[in-house]
Amino acid sequence: MRAAVPDGPRLAAPDELPAVARLLHDFNTEFGDPAPPPDWLAERLATLIAGGETDVLVTGRPPLGLAILRYRPSLWSSGLECYLAELYVVPPRRGQGLGRPLMEAVLDRARARGADYMELSTEETDVAARALYESLGFTNRQGGLEGPLSYYYELEL
Amino acid sequence: MRAAVPDGPRLAAPDELPAVARLLHDFNTEFGDPAPPPDWLAERLATLIAGGETDVLVTGRPPLGLAILRYRPSLWSSGLECYLAELYVVPPRRGQGLGRPLMEAVLDRARARGADYMELSTEETDVAARALYESLGFTNRQGGLEGPLSYYYELEL
Repeated sequence: MRAAVPDGPRLAAPDELPAVARLLHDFNTEFGDPAPPPDWLAERLATLIAGGETDVLVTGRPPLGLAILRYRPSLWSSGLECYLAELYVVPPRRGQGLGRPLMEAVLDRARARGADYMELSTEETDVAARALYESLGFTNRQGGLEGPLSYYYELEL
Repeated sequence: MRAAVPDGPRLAAPDELPAVARLLHDFNTEFGDPAPPPDWLAERLATLIAGGETDVLVTGRPPLGLAILRYRPSLWSSGLECYLAELYVVPPRRGQGLGRPLMEAVLDRARARGADYMELSTEETDVAARALYESLGFTNRQGGLEGPLSYYYELEL
């Protein structure tokens, strides 16, 4: 990870997790999704980080943006695969260039942990995020530029 | 899991993993993707199952179809979330009703393990699979039937 900018992208310190939890709560509220209380989320994040298969990155101090990475052993290689579970920048700071260095730090961190693959989901209407992902090489088409679109499906069990 | 049919959907026995690995290999070959050798895949599956966060389900004897489930602690609840990493039925047996009971067993198994959420990705052109997923309640739209499509993005790191 690039660590030259003190307030730039970095692993969240333990005392930043309450702020991260608040941002996650706001993120879900923005999209009309239910979210657990921030206190609960902060504890959950600490538990997941301690478990070793989750990284939380932040940018800004206090955090103005965050990324949550989840790792698991790959089926197809001896490495890890990484799911970018969340990427968020606070609404008033969007379009100001915070997202790209954060995503670059995400990729650096995932590679440093031994991941050889990253996946994420995003909505068709989230044009800024899609442009960022695509500029970094992500594709939502199977087998190349002319391939069929890949859809993300979900179900509450 | 429903276990009434002896050759129906069930957790793969250890001695079925080589056949599962062969199917996975054929699956990737069908879609033009590179795949590790079947011997390697069989060992990898055994390792992942032993790690506790992976289930392999098969249907048919020898297996004619398979499903691979990956679990991780959810960020949003104290339960697990489940990623359906693979679902495959051998080409000559498609359209014969093997997929639906296999997917029902997948949902039963995930719930039994404590998962409260399942996610998967599929291509727009995989019409049969999409119809199956949608008939089981999966959605690729955010926030309801009129919501924006959810895309699945990937990147080799």
